[in-house]
Amino acid sequence: MTSLLHLDSSADRFDDSVSRRLTALFADTWRGLHGTTGYRYRDLAADPVPPVTSAYATLGRRVEKRGVVPPAGVTALAGDPAERREWALTLPLVTEVLAADTVLLGVPMYNFSVPASLKAWIDRISFPGVFTDPDSGGSLLRRTRVVVVTARGGAYGPGTPRESFDFQAPYLRMYFGNLGVTEENLSFVHAELTLAAQMPQLAHLQPLAADSLTAARAAVTELASRPANTPAPATTP
Amino acid sequence: MTSLLHLDSSADRFDDSVSRRLTALFADTWRGLHGTTGYRYRDLAADPVPPVTSAYATLGRRVEKRGVVPPAGVTALAGDPAERREWALTLPLVTEVLAADTVLLGVPMYNFSVPASLKAWIDRISFPGVFTDPDSGGSLLRRTRVVVVTARGGAYGPGTPRESFDFQAPYLRMYFGNLGVTEENLSFVHAELTLAAQMPQLAHLQPLAADSLTAARAAVTELASRPANTPAPATTP
Repeated sequence: MTSLLHLDSSADRFDDSVSRRLTALFADTWRGLHGTTGYRYRDLAADPVPPVTSAYATLGRRVEKRGVVPPAGVTALAGDPAERREWALTLPLVTEVLAADTVLLGVPMYNFSVPASLKAWIDRISFPGVFTDPDSGGSLLRRTRVVVVTARGGAYGPGTPRESFDFQAPYLRMYFGNLGVTEENLSFVHAELTLAAQMPQLAHLQPLAADSLTAARAAVTELASRPANTPAPATTP
Repeated sequence: MTSLLHLDSSADRFDDSVSRRLTALFADTWRGLHGTTGYRYRDLAADPVPPVTSAYATLGRRVEKRGVVPPAGVTALAGDPAERREWALTLPLVTEVLAADTVLLGVPMYNFSVPASLKAWIDRISFPGVFTDPDSGGSLLRRTRVVVVTARGGAYGPGTPRESFDFQAPYLRMYFGNLGVTEENLSFVHAELTLAAQMPQLAHLQPLAADSLTAARAAVTELASRPANTPAPATTP
């Protein structure tokens, strides 16, 4: 069975959120092909991931010193109720990622980076060793497909004046690459100039914004229609 | 009277946190010179900034359409209790920044970027127009000094293999620069290789880490000892 973990992080509700509408289009397309059994949804804005605490950091250091400890072994290393609570908050989120063939993220650009709601999820799931295969030392995410759907008020593509202001897509590319997600399993879809619809002084950019949204919808539909398990390079026939 | 807004964002408590100890050294030095009256402290980890909601985003869009609305005028534009609550959570944080001659931030690197706790503060204070002078259209932060004290597990300086993994300092440089903080009023102090003290396999890096911490302590002390009001370039005699 193939599986999709769908995460949204926009503070806006569906009707006001370009990223939510695009990830919903992906999810609808995907469920049309694969059914609902392998589908899992998490709203990081409506149901915020609790901030990591000193107990999380202390437990993380203790585990990291041991080398690679699989998630099932972390519980035994949790030293007190606060650490056990932190791990109980963390393990389900990590398990969801490990179980997913595809991780779909809806990510509006907030202040040139990812929303705090998404960073809270990143800070919690990035527990030492949980995405490392204890046997091979390789990444457990080398076959995981990650699809990042962004919405941005302006234009930040290559060659635009604000390209260097983009700390959203390049950050997520580096972050997931560092976790072991391969280049060919990591896709970005951008809907740009979303502010054009809201700001009278940007009204002249509305046709460009509409083109960007149309292209994003097509890209999302295509990505959702791809065969679920893209083999990792090493196992490609 | 000169004023200092001191923010920490490490999940770790004081004894385990390099960034907290360094910002405390800054604050101690500063209070030794200026007294405690203008000093204000906020712990973004112990006392998290509530995540922004759809009401925050809706109010922000309504205000942004009006052009530059000073903070005092936003309350009248809040349309319902949810929006008024969001603004009530936001205004004190904005006011603190506007009132500060110096903003001091303690920022550990979490997953190559700023902690979610700091991003939550950034996402909330970055309300449309609040740092813009309604009369001149210029930035109200053009005379504000910002001192960012980072702690990083590894080394990310110019020329290091992981320089391109740093989405912490370059991000904050761009973010505060975009708010109107001038180059000469924006300082960074980095304590690097903090993991060397914790990980047996990095023990050989401990002398380098110690050098980095010594240099950071000296830089923090020097910055805290500078005259408080660095005039903006346009007003320099």
